[in-house]
Amino acid sequence: MQAAQYIGNKSFKIVDAATIAPQEGEVRLDVGYVGICGTDMHIYHGVMDQRVNPPATIGHEISGVVAELGKGVEGFNVGDKVVVRPLDYCGECPTCEAGYSHVCQNLKFMGIDTPGAFQNSWTVKARTLHKLPDNVSLKLGALVEPLAVACHDIRRANVKAGEKAVVIGGGPIGQLVALVAKSVGAEVLISEVNDARLDFAKQYGVKTINPMKEDIEAYVQEWTGTKGAEVVFEVSGVQPAIDVMTKIAAVRGRICMVAIHANAPQVDLFQFFWKELELLGARVYEREDFDMAIELISSGKVSLEPFISSINNLDDIGQAFANMDGNPSGMKALVSCQQS
Amino acid sequence: MQAAQYIGNKSFKIVDAATIAPQEGEVRLDVGYVGICGTDMHIYHGVMDQRVNPPATIGHEISGVVAELGKGVEGFNVGDKVVVRPLDYCGECPTCEAGYSHVCQNLKFMGIDTPGAFQNSWTVKARTLHKLPDNVSLKLGALVEPLAVACHDIRRANVKAGEKAVVIGGGPIGQLVALVAKSVGAEVLISEVNDARLDFAKQYGVKTINPMKEDIEAYVQEWTGTKGAEVVFEVSGVQPAIDVMTKIAAVRGRICMVAIHANAPQVDLFQFFWKELELLGARVYEREDFDMAIELISSGKVSLEPFISSINNLDDIGQAFANMDGNPSGMKALVSCQQS
Ligand SMILES: [Zn+2]
Ligand SMILES: [Zn+2]
Ligand SMILES: [Zn+2]
Ligand SMILES: [Zn+2]
Repeated sequence: MQAAQYIGNKSFKIVDAATIAPQEGEVRLDVGYVGICGTDMHIYHGVMDQRVNPPATIGHEISGVVAELGKGVEGFNVGDKVVVRPLDYCGECPTCEAGYSHVCQNLKFMGIDTPGAFQNSWTVKARTLHKLPDNVSLKLGALVEPLAVACHDIRRANVKAGEKAVVIGGGPIGQLVALVAKSVGAEVLISEVNDARLDFAKQYGVKTINPMKEDIEAYVQEWTGTKGAEVVFEVSGVQPAIDVMTKIAAVRGRICMVAIHANAPQVDLFQFFWKELELLGARVYEREDFDMAIELISSGKVSLEPFISSINNLDDIGQAFANMDGNPSGMKALVSCQQS
Repeated sequence: MQAAQYIGNKSFKIVDAATIAPQEGEVRLDVGYVGICGTDMHIYHGVMDQRVNPPATIGHEISGVVAELGKGVEGFNVGDKVVVRPLDYCGECPTCEAGYSHVCQNLKFMGIDTPGAFQNSWTVKARTLHKLPDNVSLKLGALVEPLAVACHDIRRANVKAGEKAVVIGGGPIGQLVALVAKSVGAEVLISEVNDARLDFAKQYGVKTINPMKEDIEAYVQEWTGTKGAEVVFEVSGVQPAIDVMTKIAAVRGRICMVAIHANAPQVDLFQFFWKELELLGARVYEREDFDMAIELISSGKVSLEPFISSINNLDDIGQAFANMDGNPSGMKALVSCQQS
């Protein structure tokens, strides 16, 4: 079989590799499609070389078909369509014991800290698998992982029908957050500075605003009858979003922190006190988020076809990454990893 | 009757005043004791003159006895011991309609925005009253309001038995937060730089740390077996507290923002993402918090006698304020406002 290896400096190499026989509790998958994540783009740019240690096979947004079962695996059969929840937790740290194994203190993120899915065959622990219903294609299956991120955010923020939610940042995750919020009955506004991304949101009937061109604070005041938004998702990672999030939130509003802010930004804590705001950090996903994401696709409550901006074969993986580089209107590039 | 008037520049004047007959829905109280709040000290220092507009009668931590009932008042009788929840809300703004009248958009804080309790007789809306049980003295009744602040904080942070809570800041509110957290079964650590305040906490069997002398991060790591504290209360209002609060909180830990941070401080939002932390703003109190505070005193679950550091008569109110000025070990000064 073939595997793509990231070798540093925006480059990949296709190598021949042996399939790995599944050990006890493991399953070998024939890989279907693998999506390129924002984190994969970071790796591609070389900023995570220390963690990834190239040459390395990356990729974690995967659909596939069960090809081989290790000893003791129950609930799966050869031929099942599945997706992988790419979190390898220790099960023993205080965080795992408290029930939050998805943010385990010793978490290994599969496809970053351990080998990933950009190859024809991937062998993983059976406990990471979720079955895909018949009516979900392998292509859409590769979108379950990013959709599960959005489901986690919506569950963390406890979004309810009839609430007004603002999503700051209209990249792939922001768009998915908006769709999941809509699917539970919220009214959604996406704030984004890139017009192509605003157009993308409009096709889903989501309200949009470009905060460089319009006053978002005034817009939300009017939209909510001075109440403010019940929920705000910060998915942009920039200081102006931090400045505005406390202004547009309603009293007791929930602000869900999805973005990574590496440099401690200035936060208007007075507003947290004054309006009794709530800030909720949200990272990756739990089992329930994958269940929810699969159900949303299978039921047709969210239709993700427009997110697939390109599909390349595994031996063209370099092209797939190059296409996404500096392309804000591209939502999700898939790599077809099926053995030819 | 007599009323104390704050006349600016750390000064009070005692004036003769007429009692105010209760209108429909109002009750006239014979005032018992009135506590001096941190906010009252701010007013005393002149920094709130624009809002208070001296000469003005301030004071909002009050116990008293029902003296006269206005038309249509039910549930109260002349002679009842009561305390006042000093929030005058509009009942009509989106915040009131959402059920958060305690932080009404048009909130008038009685004793700051409207006349207060440092007088022999005070006339208020009946809806602000809570009855005191027979076994709660008027002296302890004057502590219900600050205790209700602490009850609100504990309810906002949803503190549960067996959890470990850190209270940053050992002033009156921090100490009360610690006691209420203890009363619901939490283990509590107070972090405070003033040794007299640490000694005050120790008499209640609360753990204490002086972060200028000991490494609080290492302490909490060891205390919690590397897990971190399930709950952190920020009651100090200083940047070092903001720096440490995200470090000592456990995964999914709740940080309750009680302090006022007027200058947006730098907050490590990465930790909010990484550990899925929660920040909860908490302001004043709701009806339930007064009910809880009265029950805690009446049942003996918290014993507040040590908090009363001095009692002065109304005509000595200037002395009462002067005693509290720059006196970090004094917890609560009471002014006896009973007609002589
Ligand atoms: Zn991803
Ligand atoms: Zn773990
Ligand atoms: Zn007060
Ligand atoms: Zn109101």
